[in-house]
Amino acid sequence: MKTVWFDAQSKETVSRDRRRPLVVKKFGGTSVGNVERIRHVARLALESHRAGQDVVVVVSAMSGETDRLLKLAREVMPIPDGRELDVMASTGEQVSVALTSMAIKSLGGKACSLLGYQVPMITDSAFTRARIQWVEPRPIRKLLAQGCIVVVAGFQGVDPQSNITTLGRGGSDTSAVALAAALGADVCEIYTDVDGVYTADPRICPASRKLEVVSYEEMLELASHGAKVLQVRSVEVAMKYEVPVHVRSTFSDEDGTWVVPKERLFEARVLTGLACEKGQVRLECLGLEDRQELVVELMGLLARLNMSVDMLSHSCRPEERTRADIAFTLPEADLERAREYLEELLGVPGSSELRVSGRLAKVSMVGIGIRSDPSISARLCRGLSQHGISVSGLMVNELRISFLVEESLAEQAIRILHEVFELGAQPLAAEPVVSSQS
Amino acid sequence: MKTVWFDAQSKETVSRDRRRPLVVKKFGGTSVGNVERIRHVARLALESHRAGQDVVVVVSAMSGETDRLLKLAREVMPIPDGRELDVMASTGEQVSVALTSMAIKSLGGKACSLLGYQVPMITDSAFTRARIQWVEPRPIRKLLAQGCIVVVAGFQGVDPQSNITTLGRGGSDTSAVALAAALGADVCEIYTDVDGVYTADPRICPASRKLEVVSYEEMLELASHGAKVLQVRSVEVAMKYEVPVHVRSTFSDEDGTWVVPKERLFEARVLTGLACEKGQVRLECLGLEDRQELVVELMGLLARLNMSVDMLSHSCRPEERTRADIAFTLPEADLERAREYLEELLGVPGSSELRVSGRLAKVSMVGIGIRSDPSISARLCRGLSQHGISVSGLMVNELRISFLVEESLAEQAIRILHEVFELGAQPLAAEPVVSSQS
Repeated sequence: MKTVWFDAQSKETVSRDRRRPLVVKKFGGTSVGNVERIRHVARLALESHRAGQDVVVVVSAMSGETDRLLKLAREVMPIPDGRELDVMASTGEQVSVALTSMAIKSLGGKACSLLGYQVPMITDSAFTRARIQWVEPRPIRKLLAQGCIVVVAGFQGVDPQSNITTLGRGGSDTSAVALAAALGADVCEIYTDVDGVYTADPRICPASRKLEVVSYEEMLELASHGAKVLQVRSVEVAMKYEVPVHVRSTFSDEDGTWVVPKERLFEARVLTGLACEKGQVRLECLGLEDRQELVVELMGLLARLNMSVDMLSHSCRPEERTRADIAFTLPEADLERAREYLEELLGVPGSSELRVSGRLAKVSMVGIGIRSDPSISARLCRGLSQHGISVSGLMVNELRISFLVEESLAEQAIRILHEVFELGAQPLAAEPVVSSQS
Repeated sequence: MKTVWFDAQSKETVSRDRRRPLVVKKFGGTSVGNVERIRHVARLALESHRAGQDVVVVVSAMSGETDRLLKLAREVMPIPDGRELDVMASTGEQVSVALTSMAIKSLGGKACSLLGYQVPMITDSAFTRARIQWVEPRPIRKLLAQGCIVVVAGFQGVDPQSNITTLGRGGSDTSAVALAAALGADVCEIYTDVDGVYTADPRICPASRKLEVVSYEEMLELASHGAKVLQVRSVEVAMKYEVPVHVRSTFSDEDGTWVVPKERLFEARVLTGLACEKGQVRLECLGLEDRQELVVELMGLLARLNMSVDMLSHSCRPEERTRADIAFTLPEADLERAREYLEELLGVPGSSELRVSGRLAKVSMVGIGIRSDPSISARLCRGLSQHGISVSGLMVNELRISFLVEESLAEQAIRILHEVFELGAQPLAAEPVVSSQS
């Protein structure tokens, strides 16, 4: 995040008169998927409000709606114009905020909906994947002071020329966290259909355990490498502005998982959880001219193509000093586009060669302890090889170990590692260090 | 229209540099009802643009969409909150403008959609039935100057506090005419699924004839009394700002009907056409105290209830000087509500009595010649009575004769009058006095 947002605002935010705690509650598409669920959202908002909190609700489009609109757009224009697509796509949230406000009113509450341009939530002009630049807190504060529950459309913003923009898939998480930051909220509650962040996907690994607390950094690694519970950018924003995030279930009162600064983690745990991304391919560019500029160009190209490249390795050939190999992973969906551009850049066919391995999964193990324990990768490889699973492309950084494995073996690998590293066991200092606001 | 709109603007409008003619084209819900039809709209817009015109397109929601949204809102809140309903209802047009712009772009044109708040089209804050107060022409002119076809969402506006408003059912006609007025357009083309304004509904009266030209005043009477081809308020606005309106078919190149100032009608015709409203009831308040204030109160009450009262008569009883009878018509749907309020106002049961006659149709004959020919009502009554149809509540004003007839006899009455007054014949000066812009 290079933009300078509401830094100027933060002093005011901190010093605002805190007579009432302020909570931002975000509900995804399944949580507002039908009229009965919308009423449930209204009840949750009203409960908080009646308990003495100021409440801002952020909602997504009703589930299926964004896909319906996108399909309609593609019928008219196979690659839809970005500006006009955002005009259409933003209607999904527009309907949700109106229905949610009505539901609150019909239960006797006071509510007012706000669209992106009414907040206003100012973004850049990158249609369909805009980035938030500024959130104006005053109109919302004014409505809160009047006793309203403010219902804000997630996923959408407005650029400085008054064009409607959207933040990309899952952008409502980011809307919610950005609003929480701009308003100096006490907590940003992300309501979902799971009850928190787990040590591994419970559908894959029945022994997985719900985490009570996780640091922004760990959450960022988990979200970036396959955990779908939070959008990556929302975690970046939460970390930058130290917004406490509470991931919890729409259908239960139980505490979920708190995402907080790492200073507030006093648990003795080394490893936090496992994430998995299937549908990966490994691309090896073999026999390249070993020039620094070529590597820079290659990375620049992949960045421009907006592809999630990972697991990059660059190695010289001992026997042939002027030649080098570069390898990395990509989502399978990006392969053809990447290959086309790379062949042009590298002059293939020629002196170099492109080799592709498909049907891979990238498994990632995340935890704050990884940085200080070099034995972890050894235990990982040993544990898997004992079950006959071979690992390739192991990559270790401060908070994460990732490796590639045949897609069909990924779930077994996760179950093995979950057991080897005893992720199902409670950490040593198991007391919840952050408690739910009441 | 009491507001003072763009009077200040009109001078600028007239003096703007007219290098290219400007046309506003409005398409209703059936004209944008599916992807194929939206493409057709795009082709029509492009044809005009390529022929050298500046083009503003105004579209309604895809047919059925507004009803779907209203139904959804009512599930959440049986009498939906007006502000939030407008937030929802405006999404129908929002989708249409985006799809129409995309369709134009995919055919190689340049297009840009604008929502009510982006125009901006400023209205008062009467949610669900707002009135336009100001249309800002500059953002549209700027886009036109860049070679864009501007696609504006009909039916919606924005109030001075940035709340979304809607203009009420059929409001897109009014949006289009108001835009044409604000931009000083050469013509406002209203595309519909019929090919113009007829002397009578062709489904009822096969002998009916398409009118080549009709005055604002006549159109206003026809629209107010059952002709569904144009919304009443759009005609009021067209008349006030002398916007030439061309009602024509989406599916044919033929000229439709031009609606123009009466000074431009040189035809010798006396009568223009017939309109019919079914589902009327006649309410008689009998034996009222004959006080001026009571009549004023009664009319004030009906106005506040926002009911379309017509055919009012007020008569003293010769034998009983202090008593009077008042009678008027109402749409059947308003009867119960009206009766409730009236019984309270008049103190019924008491000295006065309310009598209701239902299942009536109001037939109206409209024409500029009515004012100067007192024999018309006599011919009308004679014509109908020869066929055994008895008429009640005859009412004559400058441009219209209306009467009540049993609902089941209305269509026969229309056919008889169409023949008696030779409405199917061409008027004496049959030359078209306004020709289509090319």
